[in-house]
Amino acid sequence: MATAGAGAPAITASSSSFVSYSPFSLRAWRTSHRQPAGRASVNVRCVSSPPAADTSYKTKVPRNANMAKLQAGYLFPERAHALSTIDGYSGYGAEQGEKKLRSAIAATYYPDLGIEDADIFVSDGAKCDISRLQVLFGSNVSIAVQDPSYPAYVDSSVIMGQTGLYQQDVQKYGNIEYMRCTPENGFFPDLSTVARTDVIFFCSPNNPTGAAASRDQLTKLVKFAKDNGSIIVYDSAYAMYISDDSPKSIFEIPGAKEVAIETASFSKYAGFTGVRLGWTVVPKELLFSDGHPVAKDFNRIVCTSFNGASNIAQAGGLACLSPEGLKAMRDVVGFYKENTEIIVDTFTSLGFNVYGAKNAPYVWVHFPGRNSWDVFAEILEKANVVTTPGSGFGPGGEGFVRVSAFGHRDNIIEAARRLKQLYK
Amino acid sequence: MATAGAGAPAITASSSSFVSYSPFSLRAWRTSHRQPAGRASVNVRCVSSPPAADTSYKTKVPRNANMAKLQAGYLFPERAHALSTIDGYSGYGAEQGEKKLRSAIAATYYPDLGIEDADIFVSDGAKCDISRLQVLFGSNVSIAVQDPSYPAYVDSSVIMGQTGLYQQDVQKYGNIEYMRCTPENGFFPDLSTVARTDVIFFCSPNNPTGAAASRDQLTKLVKFAKDNGSIIVYDSAYAMYISDDSPKSIFEIPGAKEVAIETASFSKYAGFTGVRLGWTVVPKELLFSDGHPVAKDFNRIVCTSFNGASNIAQAGGLACLSPEGLKAMRDVVGFYKENTEIIVDTFTSLGFNVYGAKNAPYVWVHFPGRNSWDVFAEILEKANVVTTPGSGFGPGGEGFVRVSAFGHRDNIIEAARRLKQLYK
Repeated sequence: MATAGAGAPAITASSSSFVSYSPFSLRAWRTSHRQPAGRASVNVRCVSSPPAADTSYKTKVPRNANMAKLQAGYLFPERAHALSTIDGYSGYGAEQGEKKLRSAIAATYYPDLGIEDADIFVSDGAKCDISRLQVLFGSNVSIAVQDPSYPAYVDSSVIMGQTGLYQQDVQKYGNIEYMRCTPENGFFPDLSTVARTDVIFFCSPNNPTGAAASRDQLTKLVKFAKDNGSIIVYDSAYAMYISDDSPKSIFEIPGAKEVAIETASFSKYAGFTGVRLGWTVVPKELLFSDGHPVAKDFNRIVCTSFNGASNIAQAGGLACLSPEGLKAMRDVVGFYKENTEIIVDTFTSLGFNVYGAKNAPYVWVHFPGRNSWDVFAEILEKANVVTTPGSGFGPGGEGFVRVSAFGHRDNIIEAARRLKQLYK
Repeated sequence: MATAGAGAPAITASSSSFVSYSPFSLRAWRTSHRQPAGRASVNVRCVSSPPAADTSYKTKVPRNANMAKLQAGYLFPERAHALSTIDGYSGYGAEQGEKKLRSAIAATYYPDLGIEDADIFVSDGAKCDISRLQVLFGSNVSIAVQDPSYPAYVDSSVIMGQTGLYQQDVQKYGNIEYMRCTPENGFFPDLSTVARTDVIFFCSPNNPTGAAASRDQLTKLVKFAKDNGSIIVYDSAYAMYISDDSPKSIFEIPGAKEVAIETASFSKYAGFTGVRLGWTVVPKELLFSDGHPVAKDFNRIVCTSFNGASNIAQAGGLACLSPEGLKAMRDVVGFYKENTEIIVDTFTSLGFNVYGAKNAPYVWVHFPGRNSWDVFAEILEKANVVTTPGSGFGPGGEGFVRVSAFGHRDNIIEAARRLKQLYK
């Protein structure tokens, strides 16, 4: 950081400001802005993680060779701290997020879990971070996904060239491990039948099934990853919807920091869907097979391909984590959980089996033997209600539709009335 | 669009809202949400470009084979229009940007140039779009950059695996064509010595040299691209700083729509550096070698890896394009141009040769025979003023430092005083 040194006030000209006053360390600046040739290529500021000792646990995931090609750090990671104090305007912020917000996220969502501010990368949303993580991993890794799952994992994998062609007969891409999640297995995959992959995308509470994995299940998942040297990308975007004692973070599981990344979002708690604010936790303990910290490479991706979440959105996020903000978010979650109950009661009263809902804003409704798209079309055409066809989330979603609780109460009630009319 | 049909009001449940009223076309929905297997895989909504006729000009840039693997469109591109009318809150917006903002950008910056609203993709900034464009192109393309140039082009190329290793002796990555830009060639490369690449990154007015290419030079560049079947990624982030009659958009050059993408930003006009708002123009006329429209694939990238710029930032961007907003932006640009003059006068009075500045907020100061990092350190240590070492932008920047005009007037004046003291 430009603030690391305690020198005389300096007039700085970063990429965004010619002159502003701030304490400045030439040594830190020179080290982090080291030109590629002829000088050491260590970017001290990148992530403050100690070099991995030989005894540290290492995953078996190879570091992306392209990341290793990069010389030193990105030219402009340093920002004069004074930018955020003169006239109150921050200009370009730290690509990793405002320090206060990173601290508030760590304190609010990861108390006593050993997650530090520096492990948290504020982003413009989980979806964007999933693609940045794929760029981080590169094209030579293999992935596993829950089946069904949020489509961004599979699609971003295809775009990065990690997969084979789409196989029409099984409705799957080659070289992706689809971990089937069904009512029969409690929507948790039978890991004894799952092949080893480099990366495991795991969303809990799950979109679309609404199922939250239990502590016991997540303990198995972490052990599975550790045994295989895999990295879990844990999507906890709906964690605040958990009502029972299921973990709200993968890092509640001992040892998870050595095998997991967690990505999260303000979208579903604070009505921030269009505001674009989320975060990703990359613990310093997570290492590629060569011992290189994953966080160092992710930081380089974030500095190169991103310029931080909008400062306005970050200010809003900080407000969300105040006592008043947290209460407001809990109220929002509570409201949607009431919607969820209305939807559950509606389908249950009509004789359908429904899943999810308890720990998530999604109701996963079973139409055994029917084509998801046909059910979707039937509900749309006859009741003018839009659901989402389950098979859009993978072949494991066939025969289901996902019903979302995000909506105005009057509309939920009206939809319930029409559904009761349709399926009475 | 969900609004394409004129049916009865429907209750919709997109991913973000269970119920809301909007006219809805089942046919459009089903076509764009087509499940992968057994049905046509055309995503009609993707980009409204007609199929390329055989007579259309095609670049020689191969389509990223990974993009061709993707089945249909992303599951959630459709948004009920009503989301933006009920209670005034938009929720998830169109990934491509709010319609009004796209229209305003087209009308303000591309009048009479044949650029339509649908060609414009609103983003969270040019830097982010550069990386998304690299993901679009994939790892099997070659690139050219101005030398010196903004580091994001080269770094993102390395990350995507388009390059060879870094070559310490020449301070260049393998498989990147560095187009040398010097005072001797007027900071426009000698194209007769430039090898053909798939993609040409070209920034004008340039960061860091401050040079804006003339109409004649850009005409040569477009012809060069067309002769080679290359795609130009034209970075016009500083276009509003142009004072002379240099083109402000590559699309002022006839034929450019068949060979160029343009990426732009609000950051440097509206003090939006931390707000994160920009846009990229991908004309429907731009085709891969197989005739596939580049815009269709870019739209898929944007839908999969991005969820739109923050709606707050977009509202701000729209305000910037009002008559009052445009005047305010011109005032901001004028203020920084005055700063630029102070910096130019300072160095000129001290006997230095300076370049750029006329059409850009950057002054490119020559220290012949000296190492950029040594000059940077000297100015920092002795005057407490931070510049940016030219060689950080590529080997062609050696012997220069970039001085930025972005700053408060008092600080610019104080920096000028100190520089005069240092180099008197």
